[in-house]
Amino acid sequence: MIRRLAVIGVGLIGGSLARALREAGEVEEVVGCGRGRENLEKALELGVIDRYSHDVGEAVAGADMVFVGVPLGAMKGVFAAMRGHLAEDAVVTDGGSAKGSVVRDAAEAFGGLPAYFVPGHPIAGTERNGVEASFATLYRNRRVILTPLPETDPEAVARVRAMWEACGAEVTEMSVEHHDEVLAATSHLPHMLAFGLVDALARMKENDEIFRYAAGGFRDFTRIASSNPVMWRDICIANAEALSRMLSAFADEMKDLADTIARGDGDHLLEIFERAKAARDRYIDGLG
Amino acid sequence: MIRRLAVIGVGLIGGSLARALREAGEVEEVVGCGRGRENLEKALELGVIDRYSHDVGEAVAGADMVFVGVPLGAMKGVFAAMRGHLAEDAVVTDGGSAKGSVVRDAAEAFGGLPAYFVPGHPIAGTERNGVEASFATLYRNRRVILTPLPETDPEAVARVRAMWEACGAEVTEMSVEHHDEVLAATSHLPHMLAFGLVDALARMKENDEIFRYAAGGFRDFTRIASSNPVMWRDICIANAEALSRMLSAFADEMKDLADTIARGDGDHLLEIFERAKAARDRYIDGLG
Repeated sequence: MIRRLAVIGVGLIGGSLARALREAGEVEEVVGCGRGRENLEKALELGVIDRYSHDVGEAVAGADMVFVGVPLGAMKGVFAAMRGHLAEDAVVTDGGSAKGSVVRDAAEAFGGLPAYFVPGHPIAGTERNGVEASFATLYRNRRVILTPLPETDPEAVARVRAMWEACGAEVTEMSVEHHDEVLAATSHLPHMLAFGLVDALARMKENDEIFRYAAGGFRDFTRIASSNPVMWRDICIANAEALSRMLSAFADEMKDLADTIARGDGDHLLEIFERAKAARDRYIDGLG
Repeated sequence: MIRRLAVIGVGLIGGSLARALREAGEVEEVVGCGRGRENLEKALELGVIDRYSHDVGEAVAGADMVFVGVPLGAMKGVFAAMRGHLAEDAVVTDGGSAKGSVVRDAAEAFGGLPAYFVPGHPIAGTERNGVEASFATLYRNRRVILTPLPETDPEAVARVRAMWEACGAEVTEMSVEHHDEVLAATSHLPHMLAFGLVDALARMKENDEIFRYAAGGFRDFTRIASSNPVMWRDICIANAEALSRMLSAFADEMKDLADTIARGDGDHLLEIFERAKAARDRYIDGLG
């Protein structure tokens, strides 16, 4: 049971966490924090939070659990603002979708990595933003990755794990580096391809006509290109190393595929497409 | 009104055309043709066709409208098999998703491009195949592109246009070359990226784990990688020129994007993502 949860950044991710914990009866009080008054008033009105402050230090005072749900580019400032204001028994965790940069930011802001900080990443979300888009079941049956470090207190990890499990999520642990590799492959790289493709088409002559003939597959394929540009800029910069390496390797493979097509090597094409279809079908079966 | 429609290849595309024309009361008799007895019996049972033959020459005899809905790799053989068996007033059209190769196949099979042949492409489909997947409303409000040539009889074009309009489709005309460019950009290229991405991930170490952490965006992005591998091999070979050129250019752009990420050039990233999001949002608004 969490006595007081401070949610820094009451958007889709932080708001849904608060709603889920309330619904599970696992939190007594929720304090919101953010810059926009309107969003926080809305959060109050919706019953997502009990009160709020625009000041991070004030918001975390007395909280035994602090969740930081702000864009990656704002993490460091938030950590620095809470330094010296945390309760004795406070645990701090976050929802950032790259972990290496958050760990670096925390170490710099706190002057060394605190034992009570547990880096985390719930693999969930929609294209919508803000507290109005939040809902209590967002994390149900979704995965949450925690990336504790040698410095991290196992008791803090256990409390963060229990929090996410109370929301219905499945929690796993892995290293920071492995997390950033896996996410580069499964999320960041696909987003780059979708943004890149839509941008390439938008820059073509007669692009209106081109979009007009796009079929259903294109719509699905490019849905993620409607995601928040600022958030994705931050993710690219936060996970630059793994992502740029993977994107560059993928570009080489696409060059090879273009050659295979130009050569008309049907056997090789069939091999690639069959392997991909089998993997995709296994993936979907795995989702049950 | 079509007196007798011959559908060569009674699958999703051909079957849906027959169903739509029947429902519109625009066809008197439908003759199916294909290699698989089971699928044709099913088509009979479902009332999609009135009778069938495994012989193309027999199936087209007396038909005033012939629709060829077979994979691109089978087009030439079908055209060759109907030569000398077509009725005086027959119009032949097809549903192939690349047009340059179909036009070449027709010219070779018929010994010159016949005035009664109207190359066509309905921009519609699902991941499912076979006559059981067909339905009468597949073409409603969807686009059909016709690519008539200087040799094509305008009267034949008008009859094919009327047929598709009776199915609720919006018909437009463009050149063969332009069609193949537009489709390379909006359909063939996205499919290559989806197949390529899933294949790249499947070849990674610990690929089971990688797929396990893939989120909803990945599912949508890669849905088209579950498409028929043989069909896509045929499409790549049929549209090799435009597709390999576009894929190669896109790979170059992804190399540049990887460099931009590695350099940490946030302003440039934001510019790309904002342009893409705006174009994607305009596209979705346009679908209205």
